[in-house]
Amino acid sequence: MTKPAPPEALYAAVLERIGILHTPHTLADQPPVQPVYDRGCPSRAAILPPYRRGLRNLEGFSHVILVFGFHLAEPAQWVAQPFTGDHPCGVFATRHPRRPNPIGLGLGRLDRMENGVLHLLDLDMLDNTPLLDSQPFVPRFDQVADARGGGTETVADAVARQRG
Amino acid sequence: MTKPAPPEALYAAVLERIGILHTPHTLADQPPVQPVYDRGCPSRAAILPPYRRGLRNLEGFSHVILVFGFHLAEPAQWVAQPFTGDHPCGVFATRHPRRPNPIGLGLGRLDRMENGVLHLLDLDMLDNTPLLDSQPFVPRFDQVADARGGGTETVADAVARQRG
Repeated sequence: MTKPAPPEALYAAVLERIGILHTPHTLADQPPVQPVYDRGCPSRAAILPPYRRGLRNLEGFSHVILVFGFHLAEPAQWVAQPFTGDHPCGVFATRHPRRPNPIGLGLGRLDRMENGVLHLLDLDMLDNTPLLDSQPFVPRFDQVADARGGGTETVADAVARQRG
Repeated sequence: MTKPAPPEALYAAVLERIGILHTPHTLADQPPVQPVYDRGCPSRAAILPPYRRGLRNLEGFSHVILVFGFHLAEPAQWVAQPFTGDHPCGVFATRHPRRPNPIGLGLGRLDRMENGVLHLLDLDMLDNTPLLDSQPFVPRFDQVADARGGGTETVADAVARQRG
């Protein structure tokens, strides 16, 4: 924010970094807007030893939802022109990284898991991103059959892919 | 955690509460395990005034992904028996609320938006849950055609629904 948060909005938390994301995306080589535009790109989530006991039976899932820290993002940008839309949108109508809270969400395909490392495909996070949580993608809960994508649907797939 | 986080894992952040979730779920009347078991239940996300400028053009989306604070959750439970599975799983292979970081994810159906209030269906969060972020569900990014749900698939829909 350009001005401090109002007192009623402060919510302090000491978060734990459960691991680090190692990806091919460095600042010099910008990440794609969304991983859907970078299929097959291999990455790793290295889970810190004390957190590895939480990985039991994860291997049966094909996808994980990653909660990570936007450790390099600048302050919130309230209205922006999304890459995949034609009209300016509020931050809560886009997925761009300059959000009120520096928390990002990502979906990764779980290729395999060994020695506390998740080998993942299709991530778009920057290399060395701090990982805060990993949750299994559960088709029964997470599939949405009838979703409408608002402004993102006014842009053709080919155009979105090129911008991404 | 039963013991303090290791030094390399500490990740301090001052988060902002962008709003409050008002739902019919109080502690006395436990929320369902997942909103898929409570279709049509109406809730509200009341966005604090300074954050409302970020809502522009959200109304074209049918679903939102909510990032919220598990403000009442107890310390992390590393291995648990999920309601929708038959075998104990590590916390990163379940969606249960006792996680290393008290950050929850939820999917809501956006019924309508007026005066900074999102009218939502299908939420499972407790009443008065602090809202940290709202991101649009974008079918192009978020749909997973071929996901496998690990241990959750060994339980029949009818059994999972009853437990939920």
